[in-house]
Amino acid sequence: MPIYLDHNAGAPLRTEARAAIASLLDEPGGNPASVHRAGQRARRALERARAEVAELIGAAPRQITFTSGGSESNNLAIFGATANARGRRVVSSAIEHSSILAPLNELDARGFEIIRIAPDRDGRIAPASVVAALDENTALLTLALANAEVGTIQDLAPLRSHAVRVGAMFHIDAAQAVGRIPVDVESLGCDLMTLSGHKLGAPAGIGVLYVRDAARIAPTILGGPQENALRAGTPNLLGAVAFGAAAHAAAALMAEESARIAGLAARLLMNLSAAIPGLSLNGPLTGRLSNTLNLTFPGVLGESMLIALDLEGVQLSMGSACAAGAVEPSHVLIAMGRSVAEARSSLRISLGWSTSAEEIDAAISIIAPVWRRVAEAEPARDGAEIAR
Amino acid sequence: MPIYLDHNAGAPLRTEARAAIASLLDEPGGNPASVHRAGQRARRALERARAEVAELIGAAPRQITFTSGGSESNNLAIFGATANARGRRVVSSAIEHSSILAPLNELDARGFEIIRIAPDRDGRIAPASVVAALDENTALLTLALANAEVGTIQDLAPLRSHAVRVGAMFHIDAAQAVGRIPVDVESLGCDLMTLSGHKLGAPAGIGVLYVRDAARIAPTILGGPQENALRAGTPNLLGAVAFGAAAHAAAALMAEESARIAGLAARLLMNLSAAIPGLSLNGPLTGRLSNTLNLTFPGVLGESMLIALDLEGVQLSMGSACAAGAVEPSHVLIAMGRSVAEARSSLRISLGWSTSAEEIDAAISIIAPVWRRVAEAEPARDGAEIAR
Repeated sequence: MPIYLDHNAGAPLRTEARAAIASLLDEPGGNPASVHRAGQRARRALERARAEVAELIGAAPRQITFTSGGSESNNLAIFGATANARGRRVVSSAIEHSSILAPLNELDARGFEIIRIAPDRDGRIAPASVVAALDENTALLTLALANAEVGTIQDLAPLRSHAVRVGAMFHIDAAQAVGRIPVDVESLGCDLMTLSGHKLGAPAGIGVLYVRDAARIAPTILGGPQENALRAGTPNLLGAVAFGAAAHAAAALMAEESARIAGLAARLLMNLSAAIPGLSLNGPLTGRLSNTLNLTFPGVLGESMLIALDLEGVQLSMGSACAAGAVEPSHVLIAMGRSVAEARSSLRISLGWSTSAEEIDAAISIIAPVWRRVAEAEPARDGAEIAR
Repeated sequence: MPIYLDHNAGAPLRTEARAAIASLLDEPGGNPASVHRAGQRARRALERARAEVAELIGAAPRQITFTSGGSESNNLAIFGATANARGRRVVSSAIEHSSILAPLNELDARGFEIIRIAPDRDGRIAPASVVAALDENTALLTLALANAEVGTIQDLAPLRSHAVRVGAMFHIDAAQAVGRIPVDVESLGCDLMTLSGHKLGAPAGIGVLYVRDAARIAPTILGGPQENALRAGTPNLLGAVAFGAAAHAAAALMAEESARIAGLAARLLMNLSAAIPGLSLNGPLTGRLSNTLNLTFPGVLGESMLIALDLEGVQLSMGSACAAGAVEPSHVLIAMGRSVAEARSSLRISLGWSTSAEEIDAAISIIAPVWRRVAEAEPARDGAEIAR
């Protein structure tokens, strides 16, 4: 069995989510919008899932809008919050996910002013910089709670009062954070929050947008009263029910799982650091998702490492899977002040609920020798070469 | 077991789709965008599903964009085709699905001129009326191939040359037609076509937009290179694989299934007509999806019938499930010239792959007596009362 260390790209299905899907496969089906009993049963299953997701983030069930995933949730948050807004400024950062960056570029083209705050070398966005960027013309503040590539956790709770003061909507992309650290919409004080099912053990194709007040955003998929009239279309019931089950499991197991995963990740980092001279961690030592290790391997191309490791059964990635295959170096690492060469020598290792101590031991025994072999096979790959 | 006669709202999972999901549940998962082998395996499963769906409608696999469902596909078609268009007119009909009507109303509010062609009493859109409405200012022609509520099949193939002549994109909403009648994008000559997974035995939450030329439409969910850069976000792999399996099965079984279903529906209609004086069929006798019977039951409220039938184990609907719960009478029946009273006395019976002869015999024995009972219990419900 391969060692799957790419949880930030998508976690394997949790046992509970798989069971929820399997049980629904045995039912006769039904459209939650239908009046008859098959519809009622589907509606009950959907509403139960909604309540389970709501509980994970301290929301009310009616504030949970099911979408097709984190990317759609981010698009809905950005286009939905700005559609009827008076303000023409959006405040964000330079290290957001592509499903934030691309909608912001589109707003830019439509005449909005986009402020993309630069992080420090550890990927932290200074709250003071955000506060300074918020003005009366700001329609929306959108920031990730935890960065997908390096795991840096932002200090967002202090921003709420400033967003309120200027009348801006406050959106948090919590796709990578939810299920890994405690996330509470009330203490964060956000108006909108993105969740992604497959980051926490539900299947891909289901996401959530938490919406504090449905009256303040406009839908982007039009045509039906579903999901509080915020998102037309028959919902993905299999996905929603799996999301509910995964959310419930993640909440119940979070303390235990996060301690276990933090221990495994620390062991992996310590052993790799000892075996690989010059290895460096991108992101802070604390204030980071403990499951995420973004590492710069000296003297190798990340792509070469990735392929060699895959052949040895260790599966990880260059960064955001959504940008995989792209040749550009990580925009996150570049914004954090890394050189192109450093960015191209970096890999993201992300652990999760399925990761075992045995897998980490095996990964330790595989990664360092693979690095040595790749570094020797690529003698010409000094900084200049890698930076091409 | 209840008798499920609401296939147009959503078919039960086909056995083949269920098996495809179950087999994927046993695999370790993976994001199709990831470089490693788990990602490659997911990508292969996705591309196989894409080819299976493509084959059902005579398309090339690269022309198949997976979405979250028919509603998203319709939104993507309308907003995507008009985003960068020079023309400011859209030609459509008065009997489209709500996920067509609502985007068109939004375009209306943005200054587009929307032509909503009225149907005849059988729900047919006269090709000559469409041709007369197409002008050099037309950005898009969008029509359903088969109406969701009454099943009327439109004669769309002759329209292609006229759309080309004026430079308009041609979108066909084939959500209800695909899998029930042969549908071929080449002989229809459309640029865009909407498919819905759960109408043909895949689960809800997966749909397709066929796109002849990706360069001619703009994406609406931004942020990643997925789906030919037309639709960002990690795809719903479970749904896509189930859609592929259902499409393959629907194609293989279409001739046999459609003949069987047509026979069952004809038997149902004949027996109900004999037992219920004044019963009338909405839609043409031929040139209709043979699985769909939209019937006006004299002297009763459709809602009362629907609830009484549900208690007897017969599940059907008032019309489009997406509008169920809404109190307004069907916009389709009103556009077809029915009175509000007639529309409110109408029910849609829709058969499908799971419908058996035994179910139809049982439905015949239940529906007529239920009608009699409801009609007697509602003596005051003459036309005026029902029309309130």
